[in-house]
Amino acid sequence: MILKVPALAWKRLGDYLHETQLLGSIQSTLYWDQNTNMPPSGASWRGEQLSLLATQLHARQSSKYFEELIDEAKAEFERSTDIGELDVNHANDRRRNIELLEQDLSRQKRLDPQLIAALAVAKAEGYKLWQEAKSKNQFNSFAPALSKLIALRKEQSRQLNEDRSCWETLAQPFEPDLSIQRLDELFAPLRDRLPALLDNVRSWELPESNKWDLDAQVQQDLCDILLSEWDRDALITALARSPHPFSITLGPQDFRLTTRIVPGQPLSCFLATAHEWGHSLYEQGLNFESHQWFAWPLGQATSMALHESQSLFWENRVVRSKEFSERFWPHFVRAGAPLTSGHDLWRAMNPLMPGLNRVEADELSYGLHILIRTDLEIALIEDGLEVKDLPYEWNSRYKELLGLEPKSDTEGCLQDVHWSEGQFGYFPSYLLGHLISAQLSEAMSDGLRDLGIQGKDPLGTCISSAKESLLLSWLRKEVHPYGRKVNAEDLVQEVTGKPLASTAFLDYLDEKILLLGQKSS
Amino acid sequence: MILKVPALAWKRLGDYLHETQLLGSIQSTLYWDQNTNMPPSGASWRGEQLSLLATQLHARQSSKYFEELIDEAKAEFERSTDIGELDVNHANDRRRNIELLEQDLSRQKRLDPQLIAALAVAKAEGYKLWQEAKSKNQFNSFAPALSKLIALRKEQSRQLNEDRSCWETLAQPFEPDLSIQRLDELFAPLRDRLPALLDNVRSWELPESNKWDLDAQVQQDLCDILLSEWDRDALITALARSPHPFSITLGPQDFRLTTRIVPGQPLSCFLATAHEWGHSLYEQGLNFESHQWFAWPLGQATSMALHESQSLFWENRVVRSKEFSERFWPHFVRAGAPLTSGHDLWRAMNPLMPGLNRVEADELSYGLHILIRTDLEIALIEDGLEVKDLPYEWNSRYKELLGLEPKSDTEGCLQDVHWSEGQFGYFPSYLLGHLISAQLSEAMSDGLRDLGIQGKDPLGTCISSAKESLLLSWLRKEVHPYGRKVNAEDLVQEVTGKPLASTAFLDYLDEKILLLGQKSS
Repeated sequence: MILKVPALAWKRLGDYLHETQLLGSIQSTLYWDQNTNMPPSGASWRGEQLSLLATQLHARQSSKYFEELIDEAKAEFERSTDIGELDVNHANDRRRNIELLEQDLSRQKRLDPQLIAALAVAKAEGYKLWQEAKSKNQFNSFAPALSKLIALRKEQSRQLNEDRSCWETLAQPFEPDLSIQRLDELFAPLRDRLPALLDNVRSWELPESNKWDLDAQVQQDLCDILLSEWDRDALITALARSPHPFSITLGPQDFRLTTRIVPGQPLSCFLATAHEWGHSLYEQGLNFESHQWFAWPLGQATSMALHESQSLFWENRVVRSKEFSERFWPHFVRAGAPLTSGHDLWRAMNPLMPGLNRVEADELSYGLHILIRTDLEIALIEDGLEVKDLPYEWNSRYKELLGLEPKSDTEGCLQDVHWSEGQFGYFPSYLLGHLISAQLSEAMSDGLRDLGIQGKDPLGTCISSAKESLLLSWLRKEVHPYGRKVNAEDLVQEVTGKPLASTAFLDYLDEKILLLGQKSS
Repeated sequence: MILKVPALAWKRLGDYLHETQLLGSIQSTLYWDQNTNMPPSGASWRGEQLSLLATQLHARQSSKYFEELIDEAKAEFERSTDIGELDVNHANDRRRNIELLEQDLSRQKRLDPQLIAALAVAKAEGYKLWQEAKSKNQFNSFAPALSKLIALRKEQSRQLNEDRSCWETLAQPFEPDLSIQRLDELFAPLRDRLPALLDNVRSWELPESNKWDLDAQVQQDLCDILLSEWDRDALITALARSPHPFSITLGPQDFRLTTRIVPGQPLSCFLATAHEWGHSLYEQGLNFESHQWFAWPLGQATSMALHESQSLFWENRVVRSKEFSERFWPHFVRAGAPLTSGHDLWRAMNPLMPGLNRVEADELSYGLHILIRTDLEIALIEDGLEVKDLPYEWNSRYKELLGLEPKSDTEGCLQDVHWSEGQFGYFPSYLLGHLISAQLSEAMSDGLRDLGIQGKDPLGTCISSAKESLLLSWLRKEVHPYGRKVNAEDLVQEVTGKPLASTAFLDYLDEKILLLGQKSS
């Protein structure tokens, strides 16, 4: 009989991570409040609060004491595997947790605490100025803050000193192991084919949903029906409104999401709700039932692309499907929408109409929005594009790729929140998310067939009969629980048996255009 | 010429206090979120977050380093007054700040950090269990948490080891220098006269407002009109709903207040808004334009009784006045209220009808609600009243003093949030607030007369002509800016020229009963 060595060092490390997680989730709570409740003039004080927490967090995450805790836990773990105390899976999980903690620590240690504090202040300030600049269409009043954020991020990349380019280094927290070269490979077929596909549908008539609208309260009610059909648990979730919809986890039993009402776009709030709910489902499905696990890397999301794949799945594969509209349109009629069939709603859900706004974009032009942002932020970070030239570059690329030109910076380069908070390297995750969602959907179809779900399109069969719970079960088993055990591309390879590619996504678009085209002719 | 000595130690102390204030306001933000947005199952994690912050705050507020900062700033200050560098007012302010910091520090130092952490957890847990118990009318499921909170508070009082009784010690943070003996003196005339006054009105007919209601949105709109007429600045204030209305300051430019909709009580939301706005105006008027000042004791509210006097002033002296109803009733008519005159609204605003609910109580029976709570919490803390006997004691005192008996603990001893968060010693502040509000109102009348405002009742004259800004100006000058420079009773003495007493409040009630009685006959 083997004497069990109590994992004391492992527990000490867990307790430390738990407290870090508490602080991190306090930071998230301040962010939630900033975007949902805070009056505008609260921004400056909030910036100071966030800066204080960021400094505390950075100190914790880069401290000598933390390093010792990791070292001790690692040594203890190595001793325990020697004597065969842990089963293989458990041992692999621990090894991966240690590996990720060491990686994160080494990054944190390289950063100057003053830079962390300066970034926190610059983010709060940038966000505030962006809000004002957007509402007044004054890019110039936001430009200095953006320049400041770019300078600070470049400095961050310099301090991190990784074997990657500047932009790649900044993209790592969102998309581990991503390189510009791999991005170019994955996006090349999209650059090639999306503009041509868009040309095919450019002559289609304006969707009917641009001609009617719904009251804010009615839109909210429809979202409530949706989330209720999707078994939202009100004990652990809360909803609110914010200028830019988002989803955030504030504790192991505390999931928040926001939506917004866009005048003249009666489906925007509904689609945003489905999207953010997809994010939230991923977080709810991470392996953090116990507080202990929540604190460890494996309990965290593996990448933002995988995150986006989950939100896009619920938004596009489910809510924008024909089957969903056929089932759900009576709710919209009762809410006052002038629809005469499920087909009407389906058409309204899928305008396939190039526009200037990313969040409101259809599935076809969405990729082009991302290609523009990705190119521009790499140019800003790596190729010397000056901030003052951003509006011009933005507008000319929109003209070139989407055939449209923004009439103002508010509907142009000021539309997104990301850069105002110094997030560079995030945008590609959205498009990678489309690719992953499409590829996972194919695998899910196979999985559903194995369960005996009939039809050419088993997803559609489930949606028709309000059995989205089966889709969720598949994701809960195949995708959600892994967390940072594997990176996004490896997860896709493992689940789908193929490397990530744009094929499934482009196939899906082809078929959708065909179907919509048939019906509209 | 005197060489100026830069106040370096003073600045160091100020920086330290500033950071303490940042942490404290983070704690307040978590509290705000807990009561407005957080899903129920978030409570346990929130409790851990609050406990962590409470521990950090206590460590800061009781640290050796903090003590040294105070000592050094005090020594520097004493040197500077020696050489006459500060004018008298400035020097007095600094002296008072030092005195209060030393007092607060000596209290914090006596507390065991483990007790602080245990209290934070018990408060969060108590709040959660209270919510459940209240919704299910199950006092027993809350009782153990209440017992725990009482035990912890008694332990806190023991550790503080002040020259005061246990309950008095706990009441100090709310009402500095208060004693049970002084409370008995102040409340004796109320104990004596309120039940008799209530008997006078007991036969009056049920107010009409019990027979109609307004939609939630319409009630919110009326509140918005009110706050807009009172010059609410949306840049620095935000509104929300919560189960129990409250007002809280989250930063020097960030003031929040909540209200609630009570079905069947169409004026409840409106009156709660006026009440909480009064709290917020006091906080907005404290001397903390600069962040520096916000961090110092003189920038803080002097007592909860003074705080309540400000909320009660706007609720009772303004909104419940005849002049306000005469002016505002058309808004209620447009909102759908079945009123035929301002007099109708005034009657509805002033039901003078004993009820079971403190927050919804009229001005006459309000005091009785407080006397019951004050007696019971002193009994719980000092005289061995057992928690299990609380519902019985509560109900029998309601029968005795108000002639009514709660049908459930939900409308009985579970109605208030305070004890669920371990707040003992707070309730008397509400009634003291009534006394202070009445006495300040008399002084304000004199002040307005000096400004040339005509009429027997200059307050009424201002309200009739929508000039509440004059009332606010008086408060901004005479009451708000002092903060902790003086305690509540000394402030009242200074502003009104008389010691605090119940006379003004009872005179006001007498006159109101007379007026309402005349009109109703």
